Amino acid sequence: MKDSIIRVIKVVKNKVPLVHNITNQVVMNFTANGLYALGAAPVMAHEPMEVAEMSQNADALVLNIGTLTESLVEAMVIAGKAANEKGIPVVFDPVGVGATSYRNKAAKRILSTVKLSLIRGNAGEISALAGLKAEMRGVDATGEQNYEKIAKLAVETLNVPVLVTGKVDIVASHNQMIQVNNGVELLTKVTGTGCLLSSVTAAFLAVEADVVKAAVAAISFYTVAAELANEKVHGPGSFQVAFLDALSYTSENDVYQRVHLINLSGDNKNV
Amino acid sequence: MKDSIIRVIKVVKNKVPLVHNITNQVVMNFTANGLYALGAAPVMAHEPMEVAEMSQNADALVLNIGTLTESLVEAMVIAGKAANEKGIPVVFDPVGVGATSYRNKAAKRILSTVKLSLIRGNAGEISALAGLKAEMRGVDATGEQNYEKIAKLAVETLNVPVLVTGKVDIVASHNQMIQVNNGVELLTKVTGTGCLLSSVTAAFLAVEADVVKAAVAAISFYTVAAELANEKVHGPGSFQVAFLDALSYTSENDVYQRVHLINLSGDNKNV
Amino acid sequence: MKDSIIRVIKVVKNKVPLVHNITNQVVMNFTANGLYALGAAPVMAHEPMEVAEMSQNADALVLNIGTLTESLVEAMVIAGKAANEKGIPVVFDPVGVGATSYRNKAAKRILSTVKLSLIRGNAGEISALAGLKAEMRGVDATGEQNYEKIAKLAVETLNVPVLVTGKVDIVASHNQMIQVNNGVELLTKVTGTGCLLSSVTAAFLAVEADVVKAAVAAISFYTVAAELANEKVHGPGSFQVAFLDALSYTSENDVYQRVHLINLSGDNKNV
Repeated sequence: MKDSIIRVIKVVKNKVPLVHNITNQVVMNFTANGLYALGAAPVMAHEPMEVAEMSQNADALVLNIGTLTESLVEAMVIAGKAANEKGIPVVFDPVGVGATSYRNKAAKRILSTVKLSLIRGNAGEISALAGLKAEMRGVDATGEQNYEKIAKLAVETLNVPVLVTGKVDIVASHNQMIQVNNGVELLTKVTGTGCLLSSVTAAFLAVEADVVKAAVAAISFYTVAAELANEKVHGPGSFQVAFLDALSYTSENDVYQRVHLINLSGDNKNV
Repeated sequence: MKDSIIRVIKVVKNKVPLVHNITNQVVMNFTANGLYALGAAPVMAHEPMEVAEMSQNADALVLNIGTLTESLVEAMVIAGKAANEKGIPVVFDPVGVGATSYRNKAAKRILSTVKLSLIRGNAGEISALAGLKAEMRGVDATGEQNYEKIAKLAVETLNVPVLVTGKVDIVASHNQMIQVNNGVELLTKVTGTGCLLSSVTAAFLAVEADVVKAAVAAISFYTVAAELANEKVHGPGSFQVAFLDALSYTSENDVYQRVHLINLSGDNKNV
Repeated sequence: MKDSIIRVIKVVKNKVPLVHNITNQVVMNFTANGLYALGAAPVMAHEPMEVAEMSQNADALVLNIGTLTESLVEAMVIAGKAANEKGIPVVFDPVGVGATSYRNKAAKRILSTVKLSLIRGNAGEISALAGLKAEMRGVDATGEQNYEKIAKLAVETLNVPVLVTGKVDIVASHNQMIQVNNGVELLTKVTGTGCLLSSVTAAFLAVEADVVKAAVAAISFYTVAAELANEKVHGPGSFQVAFLDALSYTSENDVYQRVHLINLSGDNKNV
């Protein structure tokens, strides 16, 4: 797995995948800058009349409901279907699902109309999507959570691979489950680090068809960059800046040296 | 008053109040990061169909009309009423009121339908709300202003406590008026420092029922953090970053040592 | 030309022009902070019912279609006409034009209803507007481009002065064409540097009626500030911060010493 991570990172930087983000207003700037920093390209567009064309010209699509409106959900469904038509990977980030019944209904609508490549969320969001009791406060997960159980049940219920992020990060499909033990506390103190990860993962899915390999490469790269950034900061403000820098200079070798993977798939603990 | 400031700051950090922000598109990222930095939690949601539920699950609500639209004003009225029902504090930030007649009408609609805990604005905005001649240019106040007089008249006219910010900051209710003489020039060179203050004050109101005590604690903490940030910056870009850092490390003791309060209530100059 | 650049920069800092931006959600914060940093003042407002009044009270208007919607295009047309009525300069930034047919139609609507002072875009966008074959990927121009030819044809076709930005920057009107050879690579790695430039140019147009002089002064100031910022950064995150700082401290003398102009107008290579 570590060799495939290195390979996928190289290909992303080489191909500069274009990611179409229909995302929330809080994180748009950070998301665009994060994608540019790592060597991908962002585009943001959410007018229902243009999203199909924009998605079909992109290499991946992200649907993020952080500040959803009726019109945005409409745009997400149109863009998602258009991406499906052309076989472009679609990542869903169900921000804050579980917080209101309106948000739950919107998430269900997306789940039932768009074929998703991956769902990325915190433990509370993935629990809520999977029909488990979610512990949410606004858009943040709370309480102690059994990430492995949540990931397993979500894949079974939703029939889509998931990337559950929090104290540890888990990528799970029907056949595989891999835990990544990297990252730093400050990632939880900066808004949009989860949202940007969804967009970064979409960039990796654009160049690697194996969803688990792509997602493990994305989260490994992302959390190692966060560790490098963390070495010289004084708080969340300087961390946000240093993290964007780190996304641009983190090398394949940095990731290879630092990434800590655990195979939870059962038969083989080596990855 | 200094002892109550220290106490309120401690409680905020302890309780991590969840602040629902219906705010403008310019400052959403900065507001979310600022709330996280100081130890509160942000949520942004503005679809009229979900704001009532979101507000009622939050600890405080902020209504900010910086980039208002018809739909946003609708959402603010719904959320405000829902917050009122459950006794959740509501802070109103009338950004740019006085600049257009549409904005004036929207502000009046909010004032007449939502019971507000506090209004936070610059001298021009508070003047405009109170029916005084406002000196505004876009969303910025201009000209020499008598802050004390503006604060007093606004409380009388609007029947809501106010926090007027500018060269000095004044918290005023029917019974009390306290001036805080902290802060730095660069706060006026970074967009959203007023908007974030409104959200920070909402976090303080979430844990302290005495509006004047909560608002004085909020503005004291905020301006002392700005002073600490100011010591090592090269312009507005690095100030914005350093300020987010400072919001996360400014201690109760820093505030106690540096805050400079003046009691304008008349009978007792000691605070 | 160098003397006029210095003079215009001085006047901008003196007059603090108010720029009304109807712009995209990705760059609003950066745009507002950039305008404040250089000594201008931003206002953002896009509700169709208030934009006419807001524009007529501003010194310049920017129309940027980066995340356009039906309602935003409506607001742009209303604001543009209102600005025209009062003779307030209007800058058009056709972000991503060429990427979707919806975007092309919106751009044409603005071109045909609003009298523009200047169009600022990358080579792909200006090509698309002028009916040339555009090489676009999302909102970014790609491929080798003949900037001089694109600028010349665009002015002839659109009958509006243009500022084409990329590896070099060219300001062109019917009579004049000036190339500015400053700037740094990192400007292309931070989102919104083109958008902010459009707003900065609007601030310069607010104080200087000669469009070519104003635009050359704006792009000279902007790219020299980027060069000064570039000296102490570790990637795109710290560049964004350092650039905002540099916009606030770059002096007329810095620009005079560093700016590199080439007269492409034909008869006289000295500028």
